Amino acid sequence: MNDEITGFQCTIALDAMGGDFAPRNEVIAAVEAFNEFPEVRILLVGREKEILNALTENNLSFPKENIINADEVITMSEVPTVAIRTKKNSSIVVGANLVRDKVAHAFVSAGNTGAVMAASTLIIGRIKGVGRPAIGAEFPTSTGAVCSLYDVGASVDSKPNHLFEYAILGSIYAREINGIANPKVGLLSVGEEDNKGNELVFAAQKLLKESNLNYIGNVEGRDVLNGKADIIVCDGYVGNIILKFGESVLTFLKGKIKSYANEGFLNKLKALVVKNVLKVALKDMDYQTHGGVPLLGINGITIIGHGSSSPLAIKNMILKAKKMHEINLIQKFEDELSKYGN
Amino acid sequence: MNDEITGFQCTIALDAMGGDFAPRNEVIAAVEAFNEFPEVRILLVGREKEILNALTENNLSFPKENIINADEVITMSEVPTVAIRTKKNSSIVVGANLVRDKVAHAFVSAGNTGAVMAASTLIIGRIKGVGRPAIGAEFPTSTGAVCSLYDVGASVDSKPNHLFEYAILGSIYAREINGIANPKVGLLSVGEEDNKGNELVFAAQKLLKESNLNYIGNVEGRDVLNGKADIIVCDGYVGNIILKFGESVLTFLKGKIKSYANEGFLNKLKALVVKNVLKVALKDMDYQTHGGVPLLGINGITIIGHGSSSPLAIKNMILKAKKMHEINLIQKFEDELSKYGN
Repeated sequence: MNDEITGFQCTIALDAMGGDFAPRNEVIAAVEAFNEFPEVRILLVGREKEILNALTENNLSFPKENIINADEVITMSEVPTVAIRTKKNSSIVVGANLVRDKVAHAFVSAGNTGAVMAASTLIIGRIKGVGRPAIGAEFPTSTGAVCSLYDVGASVDSKPNHLFEYAILGSIYAREINGIANPKVGLLSVGEEDNKGNELVFAAQKLLKESNLNYIGNVEGRDVLNGKADIIVCDGYVGNIILKFGESVLTFLKGKIKSYANEGFLNKLKALVVKNVLKVALKDMDYQTHGGVPLLGINGITIIGHGSSSPLAIKNMILKAKKMHEINLIQKFEDELSKYGN
Repeated sequence: MNDEITGFQCTIALDAMGGDFAPRNEVIAAVEAFNEFPEVRILLVGREKEILNALTENNLSFPKENIINADEVITMSEVPTVAIRTKKNSSIVVGANLVRDKVAHAFVSAGNTGAVMAASTLIIGRIKGVGRPAIGAEFPTSTGAVCSLYDVGASVDSKPNHLFEYAILGSIYAREINGIANPKVGLLSVGEEDNKGNELVFAAQKLLKESNLNYIGNVEGRDVLNGKADIIVCDGYVGNIILKFGESVLTFLKGKIKSYANEGFLNKLKALVVKNVLKVALKDMDYQTHGGVPLLGINGITIIGHGSSSPLAIKNMILKAKKMHEINLIQKFEDELSKYGN
């Protein structure tokens, strides 16, 4: 890496055109991170003119040499593989190129998730021994801990060895980033007993049992939120459905409380109390605090954020990338995977 | 059927040893149903002595000739297939035999779900053209409607034609029992577009598109609760995980509100308001009102209830079985399936 050349500990390429409020939120986050962490060099990747406008509009200043122009934008609705092939000068492709070319240590984006995944996988490439990269979703639990579910949609039709790789990568991430000494790994199934499951579960059980991971056996749908496991592995199809279902529960709840509030003045007052209490009681569920999630298995750092990411969420994504770089996480992944002859 | 012989419109075998509070809740439900619906004959299946004791303890009377003695009990923790093979005189096996032998039109149980499924499948048998029976879970939606998810655990590793059968059976059930004229059928996937999905989804899409069902295409995890579809079909492994995850969200929420309440007197008061509001706002989620769910695809009526079913829930299960019998639902299933040359 080029740390000696730049004089910075860490260089992060930030997709300025990514989120729903781009480039505004990205620009604000970049300036804040730039001021707070002088050891980090941030490269704002996107349409230079729009970035400069956003800086002016928000009365902010940012070194012009750290703006990397990229004229094209991949929108949220574009087909990822097509978009990254046809829009070579998009912020997502240019950002991934910066990591591949070792100009940046990490790529951070709140843009089209599929495109960021595709660009990371195809341009930066996978770590040796990784069949498929994985995205983890962090669920709050009743014990106050976090349960990370892998994979939540980087791929579908995961094979047993992919689940095993998710468990290895997830365990290292939980230990090194979330500070969990000996992370408990559960395998998502329809019952706790070993004989409950589908073909994928039975084959993955074998690999997990023979590993040196802290494998606790099958876990069920109800165990995602109860703190039984620190990491739960499953097929990306299943994980994606749980993630989206889980997000919708809050929407559903809010809708029901709103209907209740509309049934009279007293109800309105009570609903206000409910809103306030839930805001405090469910504060762990605010994804803005977590920032984005890493795409694990890539031979470089990629952090993917929610389209509606706030400046705070984006700043936290930058911090996450910084931490991953500082502890040399990719090397740790590679070392551990090589032990399994992957 | 023996309607002419018994003089009753409908005969229902009720597993008296099924739920967590058996035989108490079952006996209370049976007596209530017996008094309210004189056209229905209820057979209480289980240990005669315990049933008679429960009647005495609750000051209830029930015709002794309607108690069918079955000495053995299959507990919740037993392995279903082993249990129904070794406990031939259990209430579950005897209850299923009554339907097979056309003594009863329906079997209702809040006992070991796996054992009820296995007994129904192996003893009563499947409808011609059904590869695998399915259990549906009814989710409340933000529009006030109900969304039924098939399958939630009758089997795993469902094949495309099984998903297709779930859609056929579920559509008829939604129309005939829930009164939805032209039920919308969604296929659970990781994106709305046809090209988003796994191998199972792509193969099932083809069958659903060619059918005369009201197929609306792929739906996502977030669509279970938003009323987009009346029926959503998926692999039993996935459905089971969503169902259990969904149930756990309420437990998680209650835990968080409890923790909040413990942080001072004012919090306690506010939490009380929350509890009351949620009780009203989420009243649709009380499964006691729904009663149990049918095991669809069986050549007879089987209703499976939650282990903790109250007398009201069990009475509603009896009512559901009665309705299914009255409209000749099994015959309707058979007729529709035969159109597809199944």
